[in-house]
Amino acid sequence: MEYSQFESIQHAEQTLPEKVADQISQLIIENQLTSGDKLPNEFELGAQLNVGRGSVREAVKLLVARNVLEIRRGKGTYIADNPGQIDDPLGFAYYSDQLKLALDLVETRTVIEPWIASMAAQRASEDDIVQLHQSRLLVEEEILAGRNHLPKDKEFHTSIARCTHNLVMPKLIPIITYSVELFGTLNGNRLQSETIIGHRAIDEAITAHDGEAAANAMRQHLKQNRIELEAILVERKRQEPSKR
Amino acid sequence: MEYSQFESIQHAEQTLPEKVADQISQLIIENQLTSGDKLPNEFELGAQLNVGRGSVREAVKLLVARNVLEIRRGKGTYIADNPGQIDDPLGFAYYSDQLKLALDLVETRTVIEPWIASMAAQRASEDDIVQLHQSRLLVEEEILAGRNHLPKDKEFHTSIARCTHNLVMPKLIPIITYSVELFGTLNGNRLQSETIIGHRAIDEAITAHDGEAAANAMRQHLKQNRIELEAILVERKRQEPSKR
Repeated sequence: MEYSQFESIQHAEQTLPEKVADQISQLIIENQLTSGDKLPNEFELGAQLNVGRGSVREAVKLLVARNVLEIRRGKGTYIADNPGQIDDPLGFAYYSDQLKLALDLVETRTVIEPWIASMAAQRASEDDIVQLHQSRLLVEEEILAGRNHLPKDKEFHTSIARCTHNLVMPKLIPIITYSVELFGTLNGNRLQSETIIGHRAIDEAITAHDGEAAANAMRQHLKQNRIELEAILVERKRQEPSKR
Repeated sequence: MEYSQFESIQHAEQTLPEKVADQISQLIIENQLTSGDKLPNEFELGAQLNVGRGSVREAVKLLVARNVLEIRRGKGTYIADNPGQIDDPLGFAYYSDQLKLALDLVETRTVIEPWIASMAAQRASEDDIVQLHQSRLLVEEEILAGRNHLPKDKEFHTSIARCTHNLVMPKLIPIITYSVELFGTLNGNRLQSETIIGHRAIDEAITAHDGEAAANAMRQHLKQNRIELEAILVERKRQEPSKR
Protein backbone atom coordinates (compact mmCIF):
# COMPACT_ATOMS: atom_id res chain seq x y z
CA MET A 1 0.00 0.00 0.00
CA GLU A 2 1.37 3.39 -0.90
CA TYR A 3 -0.68 5.30 1.66
CA SER A 4 -1.42 4.72 5.30
CA GLN A 5 -4.12 6.01 7.58
CA PHE A 6 -2.09 4.79 10.42
CA GLU A 7 -1.46 8.18 11.97
CA SER A 8 -5.15 8.47 12.75
CA ILE A 9 -4.96 5.48 15.08
CA GLN A 10 -2.07 6.89 17.07
CA HIS A 11 -2.41 9.11 20.08
CA ALA A 12 -0.17 11.69 21.66
CA GLU A 13 0.49 10.02 25.01
CA GLN A 14 1.07 6.36 24.33
CA THR A 15 2.67 3.80 26.59
CA LEU A 16 5.25 1.46 25.05
CA PRO A 17 2.82 -1.51 24.80
CA GLU A 18 0.31 0.81 23.04
CA LYS A 19 3.00 1.88 20.55
CA VAL A 20 3.98 -1.74 19.95
CA ALA A 21 0.28 -2.66 19.54
CA ASP A 22 -0.01 0.01 16.84
CA GLN A 23 3.12 -1.33 15.13
CA ILE A 24 1.69 -4.86 15.14
CA SER A 25 -1.59 -3.48 13.72
CA GLN A 26 0.37 -1.79 10.94
CA LEU A 27 2.23 -5.04 10.27
CA ILE A 28 -1.11 -6.88 9.96
CA ILE A 29 -2.46 -4.23 7.58
CA GLU A 30 0.67 -4.05 5.43
CA ASN A 31 0.99 -7.81 5.12
CA GLN A 32 -2.76 -8.07 4.53
CA LEU A 33 -3.12 -10.74 7.20
CA THR A 34 -6.76 -11.74 7.63
CA SER A 35 -8.98 -13.80 9.93
CA GLY A 36 -7.34 -17.10 10.87
CA ASP A 37 -3.82 -16.12 9.74
CA LYS A 38 -1.10 -16.78 12.30
CA LEU A 39 0.91 -13.95 13.81
CA PRO A 40 4.72 -14.39 14.08
CA ASN A 41 5.70 -15.49 17.61
CA GLU A 42 6.78 -13.11 20.40
CA PHE A 43 10.43 -13.67 19.72
CA GLU A 44 10.22 -12.84 16.01
CA LEU A 45 7.96 -9.83 16.64
CA GLY A 46 10.30 -8.51 19.33
CA ALA A 47 13.29 -8.83 16.99
CA GLN A 48 11.41 -7.24 14.07
CA LEU A 49 10.08 -4.29 16.11
CA ASN A 50 13.23 -4.02 18.23
CA VAL A 51 11.43 -4.26 21.60
CA GLY A 52 11.48 -6.75 24.45
CA ARG A 53 9.22 -9.78 24.64
CA GLY A 54 7.45 -8.31 27.69
CA SER A 55 6.30 -5.33 25.61
CA VAL A 56 5.21 -7.65 22.80
CA ARG A 57 3.21 -9.73 25.29
CA GLU A 58 1.46 -6.63 26.71
CA ALA A 59 0.78 -5.35 23.19
CA VAL A 60 -0.76 -8.67 22.19
CA LYS A 61 -3.02 -8.50 25.26
CA LEU A 62 -4.20 -5.04 24.16
CA LEU A 63 -4.95 -6.33 20.66
CA VAL A 64 -6.82 -9.32 22.08
CA ALA A 65 -8.93 -6.90 24.14
CA ARG A 66 -9.66 -4.99 20.91
CA ASN A 67 -10.54 -8.21 19.08
CA VAL A 68 -7.71 -7.81 16.60
CA LEU A 69 -5.93 -10.98 17.76
CA GLU A 70 -7.00 -14.18 19.44
CA ILE A 71 -4.82 -16.59 21.39
CA ARG A 72 -5.36 -20.28 20.68
CA ARG A 73 -3.91 -22.16 23.61
CA GLY A 74 -0.93 -24.29 22.66
CA LYS A 75 -1.09 -23.12 19.05
CA GLY A 76 -0.15 -19.46 18.95
CA THR A 77 -1.66 -16.06 18.22
CA TYR A 78 -4.02 -15.60 15.28
CA ILE A 79 -5.87 -12.76 13.55
CA ALA A 80 -9.42 -12.67 14.97
CA ASP A 81 -12.64 -12.91 12.97
CA ASN A 82 -13.65 -9.40 11.88
CA PRO A 83 -10.42 -7.98 13.34
CA GLY A 84 -10.85 -4.74 15.27
CA GLN A 85 -14.59 -5.09 15.55
CA ILE A 86 -15.91 -5.42 19.09
CA ASP A 87 -19.32 -5.99 20.64
CA ASP A 88 -21.12 -2.77 21.46
CA PRO A 89 -18.45 -0.60 19.81
CA LEU A 90 -20.24 2.64 20.61
CA GLY A 91 -20.50 1.88 24.33
CA PHE A 92 -24.30 1.87 24.34
CA ALA A 93 -24.27 -0.28 27.51
CA TYR A 94 -22.96 2.76 29.38
CA TYR A 95 -25.87 5.04 28.42
CA SER A 96 -28.03 5.95 31.38
CA ASP A 97 -31.32 6.36 29.46
CA GLN A 98 -31.72 2.99 27.72
CA LEU A 99 -35.35 3.70 26.77
CA LYS A 100 -34.52 6.89 24.89
CA LEU A 101 -31.61 5.01 23.29
CA ALA A 102 -33.91 2.20 22.11
CA LEU A 103 -36.33 4.69 20.52
CA ASP A 104 -33.47 6.55 18.83
CA LEU A 105 -32.09 3.25 17.51
CA VAL A 106 -35.46 2.43 15.94
CA GLU A 107 -35.49 5.90 14.38
CA THR A 108 -31.99 5.27 13.03
CA ARG A 109 -33.03 1.90 11.61
CA THR A 110 -36.00 3.57 9.91
CA VAL A 111 -33.57 5.88 8.10
CA ILE A 112 -31.13 3.18 7.01
CA GLU A 113 -32.92 -0.14 6.59
CA PRO A 114 -35.59 0.75 4.00
CA TRP A 115 -32.73 2.01 1.79
CA ILE A 116 -30.86 -1.24 2.47
CA ALA A 117 -33.93 -3.32 1.51
CA SER A 118 -34.38 -1.31 -1.69
CA MET A 119 -30.72 -1.64 -2.72
CA ALA A 120 -30.73 -5.32 -1.74
CA ALA A 121 -33.59 -5.87 -4.20
CA GLN A 122 -31.65 -4.07 -6.93
CA ARG A 123 -28.23 -5.62 -6.34
CA ALA A 124 -28.75 -9.11 -4.85
CA SER A 125 -27.14 -11.98 -6.74
CA GLU A 126 -28.70 -15.45 -6.92
CA ASP A 127 -26.29 -16.60 -4.19
CA ASP A 128 -27.26 -13.66 -1.97
CA ILE A 129 -30.91 -14.62 -2.29
CA VAL A 130 -30.22 -18.25 -1.37
CA GLN A 131 -28.40 -17.04 1.75
CA LEU A 132 -31.22 -14.65 2.57
CA HIS A 133 -33.85 -17.43 2.39
CA GLN A 134 -31.76 -19.63 4.62
CA SER A 135 -31.26 -16.86 7.13
CA ARG A 136 -35.01 -16.16 7.20
CA LEU A 137 -35.84 -19.85 7.73
CA LEU A 138 -33.41 -20.01 10.68
CA VAL A 139 -35.37 -17.21 12.39
CA GLU A 140 -38.68 -19.02 11.79
CA GLU A 141 -37.19 -22.26 13.13
CA GLU A 142 -36.18 -20.56 16.38
CA ILE A 143 -39.57 -18.92 16.81
CA LEU A 144 -41.51 -22.12 16.06
CA ALA A 145 -39.29 -24.09 18.47
CA GLY A 146 -39.97 -21.53 21.20
CA ARG A 147 -36.31 -20.53 21.42
CA ASN A 148 -34.92 -16.99 21.56
CA HIS A 149 -34.87 -15.97 17.90
CA LEU A 150 -33.27 -12.55 18.37
CA PRO A 151 -29.65 -13.44 17.50
CA LYS A 152 -30.88 -15.06 14.26
CA ASP A 153 -33.16 -12.07 13.69
CA LYS A 154 -30.13 -9.75 13.73
CA GLU A 155 -28.35 -12.09 11.31
CA PHE A 156 -31.32 -11.94 8.92
CA HIS A 157 -31.11 -8.14 8.86
CA THR A 158 -27.35 -8.43 8.30
CA SER A 159 -28.01 -10.84 5.39
CA ILE A 160 -30.24 -8.23 3.77
CA ALA A 161 -27.48 -5.64 4.20
CA ARG A 162 -24.99 -8.03 2.58
CA CYS A 163 -27.19 -8.09 -0.56
CA THR A 164 -26.40 -4.37 -1.09
CA HIS A 165 -22.70 -5.24 -1.72
CA ASN A 166 -21.87 -2.12 0.30
CA LEU A 167 -19.07 -3.01 2.75
CA VAL A 168 -20.28 -0.66 5.46
CA MET A 169 -24.00 -1.50 5.75
CA PRO A 170 -23.62 -5.07 7.12
CA LYS A 171 -21.29 -3.65 9.79
CA LEU A 172 -23.82 -1.02 10.85
CA ILE A 173 -26.64 -3.53 11.42
CA PRO A 174 -25.24 -5.08 14.62
CA ILE A 175 -24.79 -1.55 16.00
CA ILE A 176 -28.25 -0.22 15.19
CA THR A 177 -29.99 -3.44 16.27
CA TYR A 178 -28.26 -3.18 19.64
CA SER A 179 -31.54 -2.57 21.48
CA VAL A 180 -33.34 -5.52 19.89
CA GLU A 181 -32.21 -8.01 22.52
CA LEU A 182 -32.75 -5.55 25.31
CA PHE A 183 -36.46 -5.11 24.71
CA GLY A 184 -37.20 -7.91 22.27
CA THR A 185 -37.33 -10.64 24.90
CA LEU A 186 -40.19 -8.86 26.59
CA ASN A 187 -42.41 -9.26 23.54
CA GLY A 188 -45.13 -11.83 23.40
CA ASN A 189 -46.39 -14.05 20.62
CA ARG A 190 -47.96 -11.20 18.72
CA LEU A 191 -44.66 -9.69 17.59
CA GLN A 192 -43.28 -13.13 16.79
CA SER A 193 -45.95 -13.92 14.20
CA GLU A 194 -45.58 -10.39 12.86
CA THR A 195 -41.84 -11.01 12.62
CA ILE A 196 -42.43 -14.09 10.45
CA ILE A 197 -44.91 -12.28 8.21
CA GLY A 198 -42.72 -9.16 7.96
CA HIS A 199 -39.56 -11.10 7.13
CA ARG A 200 -41.38 -13.09 4.44
CA ALA A 201 -42.64 -9.89 2.79
CA ILE A 202 -39.13 -8.41 2.75
CA ASP A 203 -37.58 -11.62 1.43
CA GLU A 204 -40.21 -11.94 -1.34
CA ALA A 205 -39.75 -8.34 -2.50
CA ILE A 206 -35.95 -8.72 -2.63
CA THR A 207 -36.26 -12.02 -4.49
CA ALA A 208 -38.55 -10.30 -7.01
CA HIS A 209 -35.93 -7.50 -7.29
CA ASP A 210 -38.70 -5.01 -6.44
CA GLY A 211 -36.90 -2.20 -4.62
CA GLU A 212 -39.97 -0.16 -3.74
CA ALA A 213 -41.87 -3.13 -2.32
CA ALA A 214 -38.79 -4.17 -0.32
CA ALA A 215 -38.41 -0.69 1.19
CA ASN A 216 -42.11 -0.58 2.06
CA ALA A 217 -42.06 -4.04 3.63
CA MET A 218 -39.06 -3.01 5.74
CA ARG A 219 -40.75 0.24 6.77
CA GLN A 220 -43.84 -1.71 7.86
CA HIS A 221 -41.68 -4.21 9.77
CA LEU A 222 -39.84 -1.48 11.66
CA LYS A 223 -43.08 0.36 12.38
CA GLN A 224 -44.37 -2.77 14.14
CA ASN A 225 -41.17 -2.80 16.17
CA ARG A 226 -41.60 0.81 17.14
CA ILE A 227 -45.25 0.33 18.14
CA GLU A 228 -44.30 -2.66 20.33
CA LEU A 229 -41.46 -0.69 21.89
CA GLU A 230 -43.73 2.23 22.69
CA ALA A 231 -46.26 -0.16 24.24
CA ILE A 232 -43.50 -1.55 26.48
CA LEU A 233 -42.52 1.95 27.53
CA VAL A 234 -46.10 2.88 28.40
CA GLU A 235 -46.47 -0.33 30.38
CA ARG A 236 -43.25 0.31 32.24
CA LYS A 237 -44.28 3.84 33.19
CA ARG A 238 -47.63 2.53 34.39
CA GLN A 239 -45.91 0.01 36.65
CA GLU A 240 -43.63 2.58 38.26
CA PRO A 241 -45.86 5.62 38.69
CA SER A 242 -43.93 7.15 41.57
CA LYS A 243 -40.40 6.42 40.34
CA ARG A 244 -38.61 9.25 38.68
CA MET B 1 -32.06 -0.51 36.82
CA GLU B 2 -34.50 -3.37 36.77
CA TYR B 3 -33.18 -4.91 33.57
CA SER B 4 -29.74 -5.74 32.28
CA GLN B 5 -28.40 -6.36 28.82
CA PHE B 6 -25.32 -7.66 30.42
CA GLU B 7 -25.62 -11.20 29.12
CA SER B 8 -25.10 -9.93 25.60
CA ILE B 9 -21.60 -8.73 26.47
CA GLN B 10 -20.50 -12.07 27.91
CA HIS B 11 -18.95 -14.87 25.92
CA ALA B 12 -18.81 -18.61 26.38
CA GLU B 13 -15.06 -19.02 26.85
CA GLN B 14 -13.89 -16.19 29.03
CA THR B 15 -10.66 -15.96 30.97
CA LEU B 16 -10.84 -14.79 34.59
CA PRO B 17 -9.66 -11.23 33.78
CA GLU B 18 -12.33 -11.04 31.05
CA LYS B 19 -15.02 -12.13 33.53
CA VAL B 20 -13.78 -9.58 36.07
CA ALA B 21 -13.72 -6.91 33.34
CA ASP B 22 -17.38 -7.67 32.62
CA GLN B 23 -18.19 -7.47 36.33
CA ILE B 24 -16.49 -4.09 36.58
CA SER B 25 -18.44 -2.95 33.48
CA GLN B 26 -21.65 -4.01 35.16
CA LEU B 27 -20.65 -2.17 38.32
CA ILE B 28 -20.06 1.01 36.28
CA ILE B 29 -23.44 0.64 34.57
CA GLU B 30 -25.38 -0.15 37.75
CA ASN B 31 -23.81 2.71 39.70
CA GLN B 32 -24.25 4.99 36.68
CA LEU B 33 -20.62 6.10 36.84
CA THR B 34 -19.79 8.48 34.00
CA SER B 35 -16.82 10.18 32.37
CA GLY B 36 -14.41 11.50 34.97
CA ASP B 37 -15.82 9.49 37.90
CA LYS B 38 -13.22 7.59 39.92
CA LEU B 39 -13.25 3.80 40.09
CA PRO B 40 -12.78 2.17 43.53
CA ASN B 41 -9.13 1.06 44.01
CA GLU B 42 -7.85 -2.46 43.23
CA PHE B 43 -8.10 -3.55 46.85
CA GLU B 44 -11.75 -2.52 47.21
CA LEU B 45 -12.68 -3.97 43.81
CA GLY B 46 -10.96 -7.27 44.63
CA ALA B 47 -12.82 -7.52 47.94
CA GLN B 48 -16.15 -6.59 46.34
CA LEU B 49 -15.82 -9.04 43.44
CA ASN B 50 -14.07 -11.69 45.55
CA VAL B 51 -11.02 -12.00 43.24
CA GLY B 52 -7.32 -11.30 43.66
CA ARG B 53 -5.71 -7.96 42.91
CA GLY B 54 -3.79 -9.49 39.98
CA SER B 55 -7.06 -10.34 38.23
CA VAL B 56 -8.41 -6.87 38.96
CA ARG B 57 -5.26 -5.34 37.48
CA GLU B 58 -5.51 -7.45 34.30
CA ALA B 59 -9.22 -6.63 34.01
CA VAL B 60 -8.51 -2.90 34.34
CA LYS B 61 -5.93 -3.20 31.54
CA LEU B 62 -8.57 -4.81 29.31
CA LEU B 63 -11.02 -2.00 30.06
CA VAL B 64 -8.35 0.61 29.36
CA ALA B 65 -7.75 -1.07 25.98
CA ARG B 66 -11.51 -0.80 25.32
CA ASN B 67 -11.55 2.85 26.38
CA VAL B 68 -13.89 2.19 29.29
CA LEU B 69 -11.32 3.25 31.89
CA GLU B 70 -8.30 5.53 31.92
CA ILE B 71 -5.41 5.49 34.36
CA ARG B 72 -4.24 8.88 35.63
CA ARG B 73 -0.76 8.39 36.98
CA GLY B 74 -0.54 8.94 40.73
CA LYS B 75 -4.26 9.63 40.96
CA GLY B 76 -6.10 6.41 40.23
CA THR B 77 -8.40 4.85 37.65
CA TYR B 78 -11.23 6.88 36.15
CA ILE B 79 -14.13 6.34 33.75
CA ALA B 80 -12.98 7.42 30.27
CA ASP B 81 -14.63 10.02 28.06
CA ASN B 82 -17.30 8.31 25.95
CA PRO B 83 -16.68 5.02 27.77
CA GLY B 84 -16.57 1.94 25.57
CA GLN B 85 -16.19 3.93 22.38
CA ILE B 86 -12.95 3.33 20.50
CA ASP B 87 -11.34 4.78 17.38
CA ASP B 88 -12.22 2.84 14.25
CA PRO B 89 -14.71 0.60 16.07
CA LEU B 90 -15.56 -1.41 12.96
CA GLY B 91 -11.93 -2.25 12.18
CA PHE B 92 -11.96 -0.40 8.83
CA ALA B 93 -8.16 -0.10 8.99
CA TYR B 94 -7.96 -3.86 8.43
CA TYR B 95 -9.93 -3.81 5.16
CA SER B 96 -7.80 -4.69 2.17
CA ASP B 97 -9.71 -2.62 -0.42
CA GLN B 98 -9.62 0.88 1.03
CA LEU B 99 -10.83 2.48 -2.21
CA LYS B 100 -14.02 0.39 -2.35
CA LEU B 101 -14.47 1.09 1.36
CA ALA B 102 -14.19 4.86 0.79
CA LEU B 103 -16.83 4.77 -1.97
CA ASP B 104 -19.15 2.64 0.17
CA LEU B 105 -18.70 5.07 3.05
CA VAL B 106 -19.74 7.97 0.80
CA GLU B 107 -22.79 5.95 -0.28
CA THR B 108 -23.62 5.32 3.39
CA ARG B 109 -23.24 9.01 4.20
CA THR B 110 -25.60 9.85 1.31
CA VAL B 111 -28.25 7.64 2.92
CA ILE B 112 -27.88 9.02 6.44
CA GLU B 113 -26.70 12.63 6.34
CA PRO B 114 -29.44 14.27 4.25
CA TRP B 115 -31.94 12.86 6.77
CA ILE B 116 -29.76 14.19 9.59
CA ALA B 117 -29.67 17.67 7.99
CA SER B 118 -33.43 17.67 7.52
CA MET B 119 -34.13 16.60 11.12
CA ALA B 120 -31.50 19.04 12.40
CA ALA B 121 -33.46 21.85 10.70
CA GLN B 122 -36.68 20.66 12.31
CA ARG B 123 -35.36 19.99 15.82
CA ALA B 124 -32.39 22.32 16.45
CA SER B 125 -32.67 24.56 19.51
CA GLU B 126 -31.18 28.07 19.62
CA ASP B 127 -28.21 26.68 21.55
CA ASP B 128 -27.67 23.95 18.95
CA ILE B 129 -27.55 26.56 16.22
CA VAL B 130 -25.01 28.67 18.11
CA GLN B 131 -22.80 25.58 18.47
CA LEU B 132 -23.27 24.72 14.80
CA HIS B 133 -22.14 28.22 13.68
CA GLN B 134 -19.09 28.00 15.90
CA SER B 135 -18.21 24.58 14.58
CA ARG B 136 -18.54 25.79 10.98
CA LEU B 137 -16.33 28.82 11.66
CA LEU B 138 -13.62 26.58 13.12
CA VAL B 139 -13.48 24.63 9.84
CA GLU B 140 -13.20 27.86 7.84
CA GLU B 141 -10.47 29.11 10.15
CA GLU B 142 -8.39 25.96 9.56
CA ILE B 143 -8.86 26.13 5.79
CA LEU B 144 -8.03 29.83 5.59
CA ALA B 145 -4.92 29.32 7.78
CA GLY B 146 -3.77 26.52 5.47
CA ARG B 147 -3.98 23.93 8.23
CA ASN B 148 -5.53 20.45 7.95
CA HIS B 149 -9.22 21.16 8.44
CA LEU B 150 -10.44 17.54 8.34
CA PRO B 151 -10.72 16.86 12.10
CA LYS B 152 -12.81 20.05 12.46
CA ASP B 153 -14.77 19.05 9.36
CA LYS B 154 -15.81 15.79 11.05
CA GLU B 155 -16.78 17.76 14.16
CA PHE B 156 -18.99 20.04 12.06
CA HIS B 157 -20.86 17.02 10.69
CA THR B 158 -21.16 15.68 14.26
CA SER B 159 -22.56 19.07 15.37
CA ILE B 160 -25.27 18.78 12.72
CA ALA B 161 -26.09 15.27 13.96
CA ARG B 162 -26.34 16.59 17.52
CA CYS B 163 -29.09 19.00 16.37
CA THR B 164 -31.33 15.97 15.68
CA HIS B 165 -31.40 15.13 19.43
CA ASN B 166 -31.12 11.48 18.38
CA LEU B 167 -28.50 9.83 20.62
CA VAL B 168 -27.24 7.46 17.93
CA MET B 169 -26.64 9.75 14.95
CA PRO B 170 -23.74 11.78 16.44
CA LYS B 171 -22.03 8.45 17.25
CA LEU B 172 -22.39 7.19 13.68
CA ILE B 173 -20.74 10.25 12.11
CA PRO B 174 -17.16 9.45 13.23
CA ILE B 175 -17.64 5.93 11.82
CA ILE B 176 -19.03 6.89 8.43
CA THR B 177 -16.57 9.77 7.97
CA TYR B 178 -13.70 7.34 8.56
CA SER B 179 -12.42 7.68 5.00
CA VAL B 180 -12.44 11.48 5.04
CA GLU B 181 -8.92 11.79 6.43
CA LEU B 182 -7.66 8.96 4.27
CA PHE B 183 -8.43 10.65 0.97
CA GLY B 184 -9.26 14.18 2.05
CA THR B 185 -5.67 15.30 2.44
CA LEU B 186 -5.08 14.61 -1.24
CA ASN B 187 -7.59 17.23 -2.31
CA GLY B 188 -6.56 20.56 -3.63
CA ASN B 189 -7.93 24.05 -3.13
CA ARG B 190 -10.99 23.40 -5.22
CA LEU B 191 -12.65 21.10 -2.69
CA GLN B 192 -11.68 23.43 0.13
CA SER B 193 -13.63 26.40 -1.26
CA GLU B 194 -16.49 24.04 -2.06
CA THR B 195 -16.36 22.82 1.54
CA ILE B 196 -16.78 26.39 2.82
CA ILE B 197 -19.67 27.09 0.43
CA GLY B 198 -21.33 23.73 1.12
CA HIS B 199 -21.08 24.07 4.88
CA ARG B 200 -22.52 27.59 4.76
CA ALA B 201 -25.53 26.41 2.73
CA ILE B 202 -26.22 23.58 5.22
CA ASP B 203 -25.82 25.88 8.21
CA GLU B 204 -28.13 28.54 6.72
CA ALA B 205 -30.87 26.02 5.91
CA ILE B 206 -30.75 24.53 9.43
CA THR B 207 -30.79 28.02 10.97
CA ALA B 208 -33.87 28.82 8.84
CA HIS B 209 -35.42 25.52 10.05
CA ASP B 210 -35.90 24.55 6.40
CA GLY B 211 -35.60 20.75 6.38
CA GLU B 212 -35.86 20.28 2.64
CA ALA B 213 -33.22 22.90 1.84
CA ALA B 214 -30.92 21.40 4.50
CA ALA B 215 -31.27 17.89 3.04
CA ASN B 216 -30.60 19.22 -0.46
CA ALA B 217 -27.56 21.22 0.63
CA MET B 218 -26.17 18.12 2.35
CA ARG B 219 -26.83 15.99 -0.75
CA GLN B 220 -24.98 18.52 -2.90
CA HIS B 221 -22.08 18.65 -0.43
CA LEU B 222 -21.70 14.86 -0.39
CA LYS B 223 -21.99 14.69 -4.16
CA GLN B 224 -18.95 17.00 -4.43
CA ASN B 225 -17.11 14.66 -2.09
CA ARG B 226 -17.99 11.66 -4.20
CA ILE B 227 -16.93 13.37 -7.45
CA GLU B 228 -13.58 14.31 -5.91
CA LEU B 229 -13.09 10.79 -4.59
CA GLU B 230 -13.83 9.27 -7.98
CA ALA B 231 -11.36 11.67 -9.59
CA ILE B 232 -8.69 10.52 -7.11
CA LEU B 233 -9.43 6.90 -7.95
CA VAL B 234 -9.16 7.51 -11.69
CA GLU B 235 -5.87 9.35 -11.16
CA ARG B 236 -4.53 6.55 -9.02
CA LYS B 237 -5.40 3.90 -11.58
CA ARG B 238 -3.74 5.97 -14.31
CA GLN B 239 -0.52 6.17 -12.26
CA GLU B 240 -0.30 2.43 -11.67
CA PRO B 241 -1.41 0.94 -14.97
CA SER B 242 0.42 -2.36 -14.55
CA LYS B 243 -0.30 -2.95 -10.86
CA ARG B 244 -3.08 -5.33 -10.09
